[in-house]
Amino acid sequence: MMAIEPDATSTTIRLAHGAGGRLMSDLIRDVFVPPLDNAYLGQMSDSTVIGLPALGRLAISTDSFVVHPLFFPGGDIGSLAIHGTVNDVSMSGATPLWLTAAFILEEGLSLDVLESIVRSMAQAAQTAGVQIVSGDTKVVESGHGDGVYINTTGVGRVAKGVSVAPNQGRPGDVVLVSGTLGDHGIAILTQREGLQFETAILSDSAPLNGLVATLLTAAPHTHCLRDLTRGGLAAALNELALTSQAGIEIEEEAIPIQPAVAAACEMMGFDPLTIANEGKLIAFVPQREAEAALQALRAHPLGQRAACIGTLTADHPGLVVAQTAIGGRRIVRVPLGELLPRIC
Amino acid sequence: MMAIEPDATSTTIRLAHGAGGRLMSDLIRDVFVPPLDNAYLGQMSDSTVIGLPALGRLAISTDSFVVHPLFFPGGDIGSLAIHGTVNDVSMSGATPLWLTAAFILEEGLSLDVLESIVRSMAQAAQTAGVQIVSGDTKVVESGHGDGVYINTTGVGRVAKGVSVAPNQGRPGDVVLVSGTLGDHGIAILTQREGLQFETAILSDSAPLNGLVATLLTAAPHTHCLRDLTRGGLAAALNELALTSQAGIEIEEEAIPIQPAVAAACEMMGFDPLTIANEGKLIAFVPQREAEAALQALRAHPLGQRAACIGTLTADHPGLVVAQTAIGGRRIVRVPLGELLPRIC
Repeated sequence: MMAIEPDATSTTIRLAHGAGGRLMSDLIRDVFVPPLDNAYLGQMSDSTVIGLPALGRLAISTDSFVVHPLFFPGGDIGSLAIHGTVNDVSMSGATPLWLTAAFILEEGLSLDVLESIVRSMAQAAQTAGVQIVSGDTKVVESGHGDGVYINTTGVGRVAKGVSVAPNQGRPGDVVLVSGTLGDHGIAILTQREGLQFETAILSDSAPLNGLVATLLTAAPHTHCLRDLTRGGLAAALNELALTSQAGIEIEEEAIPIQPAVAAACEMMGFDPLTIANEGKLIAFVPQREAEAALQALRAHPLGQRAACIGTLTADHPGLVVAQTAIGGRRIVRVPLGELLPRIC
Repeated sequence: MMAIEPDATSTTIRLAHGAGGRLMSDLIRDVFVPPLDNAYLGQMSDSTVIGLPALGRLAISTDSFVVHPLFFPGGDIGSLAIHGTVNDVSMSGATPLWLTAAFILEEGLSLDVLESIVRSMAQAAQTAGVQIVSGDTKVVESGHGDGVYINTTGVGRVAKGVSVAPNQGRPGDVVLVSGTLGDHGIAILTQREGLQFETAILSDSAPLNGLVATLLTAAPHTHCLRDLTRGGLAAALNELALTSQAGIEIEEEAIPIQPAVAAACEMMGFDPLTIANEGKLIAFVPQREAEAALQALRAHPLGQRAACIGTLTADHPGLVVAQTAIGGRRIVRVPLGELLPRIC
C-alpha cells in the first residue's frame, strides 16, 4: 500500500467499498472472485453473455439499488432500478427482454410510497419495452433497512454477429460519449444536501437499449460499450483500458458537461470525470464507423450531446491519459472510494 | 376485513408483510401486481417459465435473503441463498443452470465474515451444479442493513415434455412430501433465542434439483411441485389449492416431523404446518405414478423420510382440510403473518 493512501486497508466493510472505485475492485478481486470464479464471472462485464448451441446467446446482469433519497430530481428508486439493469444488459449489445424485481422493505415504510415506486417501475419497464417476470418481497425490522432496497436482474438476447465485450477495444478505436457527464450524481447530491442552483439539475436516469440499437445499426463493428455509473467516466475508461489492454487518450475540452453540473463540481471540489450518470454510455468504435456512430447517437433523443472524446492507443496499455484544457497531460485514475455513497 | 383480524389493515409495512402469510399475498395482489401485471408474473409460480420458439423454455426466479442470524445450525446466509433459488427454479421442473449474486453489505461488516459467506456460497453452488455468472456489490451505512443481504436470481432450462405448474393439480392426485417439516424455521429460532434441546435441530437447507430430477424420471406426469419455505406446508398447500382450483385432504398423522421439532413447536405454541423448511418439497402426482414417485424420493438422500400425506379432491375447491390425529377435521389456513420473521 502506498503511504499516501493509508486507509486502503481495512478488515471491515466501509462505505467506500460500495462506491465503484478501487476499494470496490479490490473487494471483488480479493473476496468474491477467488471462491466463485468461473469463465462467466471472469468476463468482468456489465452483463454476462452465455452461449448454448440450442439457446443462442443470453446476457444476464444483476444490480441492487440502495439509492438515497428514494425520490430525486428526474427519477426515483423504481425507475432507476429498471434503467440500471436495462442498461447493463444493453452494454453486451443484447436486447433486454425480462427483468426480475426483488424488494427488501423496511418495517414502517408507507404503503403510499411503495405504491408510487412500483408504479414508477411499471412505467419505466413499459417505456424500455421489458417485462418484469418474477418477484420477491422481504421485510426487515425498522433500523435494518432504509425504506426500500430493490434488486433487479435482467436477461436479454444477443443477436447473431454482435460481438461487443470489455476486452474488444483496439488501438485506433474512437471513444464516443453519448452526452453530458455527472448529471445523476450531482442531482442526487443536491437533493440530499438541500442545495439550490440557478438551473435545476435533473438525473439523466434513462433506458439506453434504444440508443444502443441505433448505435449498433450505424456502427455494427462497435467493440466496447459501457454505461457510466459509479465511479463515472474515470472508472469506466480505466476498466476498459485494463480489460482491452490498450491505452486511452482523451481530451478534457471535448467532454460535454452541463454548466450547472460543472459549477456544482467546482464548488464542491469534485472531478466531474468521477461522478455517476445513469443514462449515458461510452462506446469504442473502429475509426471507419466512428462518424456514422456519432451521427446516429446525436439523432437519438438520448444522445443529442454525444461527442468524440478520444482514441485508443498502443502506447501505455491499461492507462488513461487526459489532455487538459490548459495543454498539459494528466493520468486519469480510478477514485479509491467515492465522496458520494448510495447514488444508485 | 373480519373483526377477528383487526390488524390486517395497515398503511405502513409491517414485519408480517414479509412472512409468507396472507398479509404478504395481499401486498403482492394489491400493490405489486396491478401496475406490473403481465402473463409471466401472472403465473404466480416459484419461478416463471418463458417460452420462445428459438430459445426453448427458460425458468427464471429471484429471491432476496435477509436471514438473521447470518450463521445457523446446518447452514448460513450464503448456502441458503444458493439453495433457495436453486429450489425455486427446480419447482418449475427446470434444471437450474446460472445464478446471479448481489450483495448489500452494511458498513462495519467484518471481511472475515463476508469471506466465510462467499466460500459457503461457492461450495453450495458447486454441490448444486450451478454457476454464479454475474454479481453486484452495494454498501449501506451502519444502521441501514444487518451485516449482509444477498439476492440470487436463477435461470434454468425446462426440458421438452415437462409440464409442471401451480395450476396443474387434478382431483385424484396424490400429495407427497419429501421429508420432515419445520426443521429450518425451528433451527433458526433456537439459534436466535439461544434455546437448547436434547437433540440439536439442524436446518434442512439443501439444493433440491437432484431430487426433482429423480422424481420426474420416476413420475414424468407430476403436476405440481412446491418447496416449503415461508408459511410452511400450510401456505404451500393453500396456494396450490387455489391456483389448481382443487380441494386438498391431508392426514396429519401421515406428516413426518422430527420429535425434537414437534417438541419445540409444542413448547412454543407453533403449528408445525406453518413453519418453514429450506430443503423439502411437496409434489402432486397422478395416482398411477404415485408409488413410483414415493419410492424414487425415498431412494434419494434428501428424500428418505418422504411420505404420502393426502389427495386432491373435487370437493371444496381451494380449501385444505386436515384429518386430525384424534379423528376430527379442521381447515388448514394460511397464517396471516408469521411469528418467525427473517427466516430466509
